[in-house]
Amino acid sequence: MLTEEDRALLTGKNFASFTTLMPDGSPQTTVVWVDTDGEHVLVNTAVGRVKERNVARDARVALTLFEQEDPYNQLAIRGRVVETTLTGAEDSIDELARRYLGTESYPWRSEGERRVLLKVLPERVIR
Amino acid sequence: MLTEEDRALLTGKNFASFTTLMPDGSPQTTVVWVDTDGEHVLVNTAVGRVKERNVARDARVALTLFEQEDPYNQLAIRGRVVETTLTGAEDSIDELARRYLGTESYPWRSEGERRVLLKVLPERVIR
Repeated sequence: MLTEEDRALLTGKNFASFTTLMPDGSPQTTVVWVDTDGEHVLVNTAVGRVKERNVARDARVALTLFEQEDPYNQLAIRGRVVETTLTGAEDSIDELARRYLGTESYPWRSEGERRVLLKVLPERVIR
Repeated sequence: MLTEEDRALLTGKNFASFTTLMPDGSPQTTVVWVDTDGEHVLVNTAVGRVKERNVARDARVALTLFEQEDPYNQLAIRGRVVETTLTGAEDSIDELARRYLGTESYPWRSEGERRVLLKVLPERVIR
């Protein structure tokens, strides 16, 4: 479902807005770094965060992003978190830090924090 | 609830992501221009669009934006559309076009389109 152009946006230094659903069904949105494995959109968060708890209860999410240098080059995705995995999540946040911050590793880890990858399967993609 | 810094972000040339809820409760997010009257966040859309129909049914929305020149200067708002008004909406979209595009008026009107302003009352603001 993701095209080459979509993948280019998802692997550029572009910021995404990621929406999950609160227990009462209302939407919660935050700005996130983003990545893709080609098929899924990958969002890196930490165990116990609002986003992680929300998708454990209701997997339906939405995400937008636009090219930092050309905000009219946009992507809007609706889909579902099909996997929440610890595997690879620590490496992935370091890789994201290299891309977005230019640092060797992720500098904002808190004590005891465990990173997780949310794998979003796109069900509707609008460009 | 909105601070001076929030208002500065909302009246800058910054792009917002605006989330409404579909009939089945799933989130739908799009990139939008944005404005404020000081108290509400203003989103300009057209009568009959998905966003307008969604908020008529469920007023709960979420919105993020970040400063185009400094993406870590961010705002995340959860709130409720308390008014959907035609009054001032045509002027407002022209004003937004001047801000975002530098054109005299909004160049992308479709035949028969009627603009509406969604007035979002913030209930939770995170910076």
